[in-house]
Amino acid sequence: MSGPQTPEPARRTQGDYPTGTGGEDTADGIQHSQRMLSFSDALLSIIATVMILPVTHTEISPEQFDKSIQRLLATRIAVYLMTFLIVTVAWAAHTRLFQVVGKIDDTLALLNLACMMTITFLPFTFSLMVTFPEVPLGIFLFCMCVIAIGAVQALIVVYAFHFPHLLNPQIESSTHRTLYRQHILGIVLRGPALCFAAAASSLFFYPQEGGSYLLMATVIFLPYVSKACSWCKGRLVGPQEPPAHSVEFFTFDLHEPLSKERVEAFSDGVYAIVATLLILDICEDNIPDSKDVKEKFHGSLVAALSVYGPHFLAYFGSFATVGLLWFAHHSLFLHIRKATQSMGLLNTLSLAFVGGLPLAYQQTSAFAQQPHDELESVRVSCAIIFFASIFQFAIWTTALLHEEETLQPSARFGGREHAFMFAKLALYPCASLLAFASTCFLSRFSTAIFHLTQIAVPFGFLLLRLLVRLALALLRALRGLPLPAPGGQDDMRSPLLPSP
Amino acid sequence: MSGPQTPEPARRTQGDYPTGTGGEDTADGIQHSQRMLSFSDALLSIIATVMILPVTHTEISPEQFDKSIQRLLATRIAVYLMTFLIVTVAWAAHTRLFQVVGKIDDTLALLNLACMMTITFLPFTFSLMVTFPEVPLGIFLFCMCVIAIGAVQALIVVYAFHFPHLLNPQIESSTHRTLYRQHILGIVLRGPALCFAAAASSLFFYPQEGGSYLLMATVIFLPYVSKACSWCKGRLVGPQEPPAHSVEFFTFDLHEPLSKERVEAFSDGVYAIVATLLILDICEDNIPDSKDVKEKFHGSLVAALSVYGPHFLAYFGSFATVGLLWFAHHSLFLHIRKATQSMGLLNTLSLAFVGGLPLAYQQTSAFAQQPHDELESVRVSCAIIFFASIFQFAIWTTALLHEEETLQPSARFGGREHAFMFAKLALYPCASLLAFASTCFLSRFSTAIFHLTQIAVPFGFLLLRLLVRLALALLRALRGLPLPAPGGQDDMRSPLLPSP
Repeated sequence: MSGPQTPEPARRTQGDYPTGTGGEDTADGIQHSQRMLSFSDALLSIIATVMILPVTHTEISPEQFDKSIQRLLATRIAVYLMTFLIVTVAWAAHTRLFQVVGKIDDTLALLNLACMMTITFLPFTFSLMVTFPEVPLGIFLFCMCVIAIGAVQALIVVYAFHFPHLLNPQIESSTHRTLYRQHILGIVLRGPALCFAAAASSLFFYPQEGGSYLLMATVIFLPYVSKACSWCKGRLVGPQEPPAHSVEFFTFDLHEPLSKERVEAFSDGVYAIVATLLILDICEDNIPDSKDVKEKFHGSLVAALSVYGPHFLAYFGSFATVGLLWFAHHSLFLHIRKATQSMGLLNTLSLAFVGGLPLAYQQTSAFAQQPHDELESVRVSCAIIFFASIFQFAIWTTALLHEEETLQPSARFGGREHAFMFAKLALYPCASLLAFASTCFLSRFSTAIFHLTQIAVPFGFLLLRLLVRLALALLRALRGLPLPAPGGQDDMRSPLLPSP
Repeated sequence: MSGPQTPEPARRTQGDYPTGTGGEDTADGIQHSQRMLSFSDALLSIIATVMILPVTHTEISPEQFDKSIQRLLATRIAVYLMTFLIVTVAWAAHTRLFQVVGKIDDTLALLNLACMMTITFLPFTFSLMVTFPEVPLGIFLFCMCVIAIGAVQALIVVYAFHFPHLLNPQIESSTHRTLYRQHILGIVLRGPALCFAAAASSLFFYPQEGGSYLLMATVIFLPYVSKACSWCKGRLVGPQEPPAHSVEFFTFDLHEPLSKERVEAFSDGVYAIVATLLILDICEDNIPDSKDVKEKFHGSLVAALSVYGPHFLAYFGSFATVGLLWFAHHSLFLHIRKATQSMGLLNTLSLAFVGGLPLAYQQTSAFAQQPHDELESVRVSCAIIFFASIFQFAIWTTALLHEEETLQPSARFGGREHAFMFAKLALYPCASLLAFASTCFLSRFSTAIFHLTQIAVPFGFLLLRLLVRLALALLRALRGLPLPAPGGQDDMRSPLLPSP
């Protein structure tokens, strides 16, 4: 641990960030958008995840686990997944929009709030859609929301182009500004136009049950579909004319990486809310009733609480899992320089499963008393953890495919941190697979053992670091390889600085 | 709107922040703490606020509003307030700790997660404490948590001082490093030591009901008490010796401002979660049952939903209020250069009332049908909004007392934005007072009118901007004052840059 001690000031005062909100010109109401974007990220990540609460609040008692409960559960899971995917799409569009609009003023801040308000209303339309699949009102309201969002975003674009000092300086100084405006407006209004058609048709004839899902799928995969279309067109017609290409270059091209900071902020929000939903359940449900304590436990609060013992174990186990998945994500993104579109998609899928972790917690803690359901619920937990972590692993493998562009030098093949990152990211997929397998072979495997394993994994992380270091040192000693120079990453640092 | 067009790149790519996570040395596992701190801020703000959910989930029907319900409600409000205050204290301590520790590695990240896990467990101990005031188990668990947090923080300090390249560079290069370590360890362990005494005494004799609250109050106000003590000591004994003063200077002195960025991040988290809790209630409770729709409304979903009309109005009204309170906070902190301790306290109080807004929403929407309770619930809403906004106003007046230090030049007395900031911050206190008064005088005032007013306020903001500009222009024209120079704030910008 004798790294080069960079002498830059690490204290986070307002002077540290030249583009921050500290010493800048706020006299004319023009502000950097940084804080507004963090707030939007927090809002959107919480909305995306919070719909898991109705799923976990579905009361399942093993006696009356009938069709209606199954259907309710399926409905709520569908609402959760639809919300998560649509909100992520809206978030990505928001990211791209504010890559064009570089600064804000009061009017833009208020317009952004209006946009957020409409997005928060989306989950309600999904609930309607899924609960009453035969009534077109849900689809109609959903389309109205999408149209409203599109209208507000179009207003933001028009306003920003009317006061060009609010724009990204590259666009501001460009000579093709009107061309840009038309292009961006076209993209912003594409989804709403589609939805307008759908809303009109939903008024005229009742769609089949599948119709609404088809519409949703279209909206979610619209960017990919249009990408594929333009690729096909490019193949058939030949390459497009250069000016249009340079328009694409900026912000709405799908190869353009998402802002890494905003991907991190959105992910942080999801992890934070998931970790916190767990304690909410503990506080609401696991406080014994004063009457019960007197009657059943002869006034002994400790005895009353010990009934809930498995819940607390499950809580600590789940928190450790969420925390360590965040930790793996954090380590991963430390080594990533750019988040491409496909990495963003994989990140979304990983986060969707992370959002499902409260369900795993509720499963393992609710069924902790019934021995034959216990193994079942451990399996559900393992599956959720497995998918959450394997998609993280997939982000890394995708990044490795274009490692020159996407990764820091130390994490590339042969880098100092490569082996350790591999081990770190492979730990959870392997551990959850192992736990899943052991539920099949070991009949005495229980939730208690499962949660204790979850709590033990952090120490595994520390142990891992030691082991990987030892193994690498051994390998090098055996092969007689020289140790990498401690300053080896410094020569790669200069290309990362912004070109003026 | 023709401000000076600063040509710096506004796109938020990783190259923009020299202290960010972009091009830095991650080869030895040493990382900047920025992202971990944002994650901690998000977690802590959500935990502080989420305990309002049990309060709003308390089912109150006007017929059976008896003593037991009142007591349950009071209990839950107490838990919410205690959680909010304690978590804010823990957050402030965390901020100060990571002003000393400038960089992190994997071990510190894991230790921080352990600290977070212990903090998330605090609300449960409060629930126990308040539900069973006569049993010392709640206090005992609470003290255990505080001791665990203190132990983890002490570990972080010891670890960071053992690898000094993790420290704030100012401390790293100081010659008094061991002195610093002892001093910081003393502060970190002061609260836990107090709690250890309390836990021990709670085992030996049952405390009175007030005892637990006294303990809580001590922990919350410990920084202020110790500040007052040292002030008294200073008065009695005379000024302390200089080396101890220079130790204080760094981070743990109460006059040392909190990190403005982290205050913003914490506040953003609270506003974001409050805005999102509203839609959760809508989605869980306001989806009509399929059977009901068929039987009561003859299959008409629109008719069934129109029963919930007031709820939707209340939702949009509340979202507009939360959004605009965030907007006012955002505008305020744009003009603030430093957040002093007293401003931090006022901010906490304002946020605590913002966290109470879901309660206001539930009050106004649940009682919307009973005419005589309606006015009552509008009054509760007005009171909550009034306190949330008046504390924001108080932050500004406090900042004005030391305007040289704390405010940007444009917001000071006579600055261009001064009058507008005043109007912006005074809008909500005035509007809520007006609404409160009108419930007393106008018998026809209803929740519907109240919510429509809430929705109309954003337009008020825009109107306000216009009116203030007009009024200022008129005043200046009447008095013949010259317009302030557009570049007048530039000469004040250089002192904001970090001194190397």
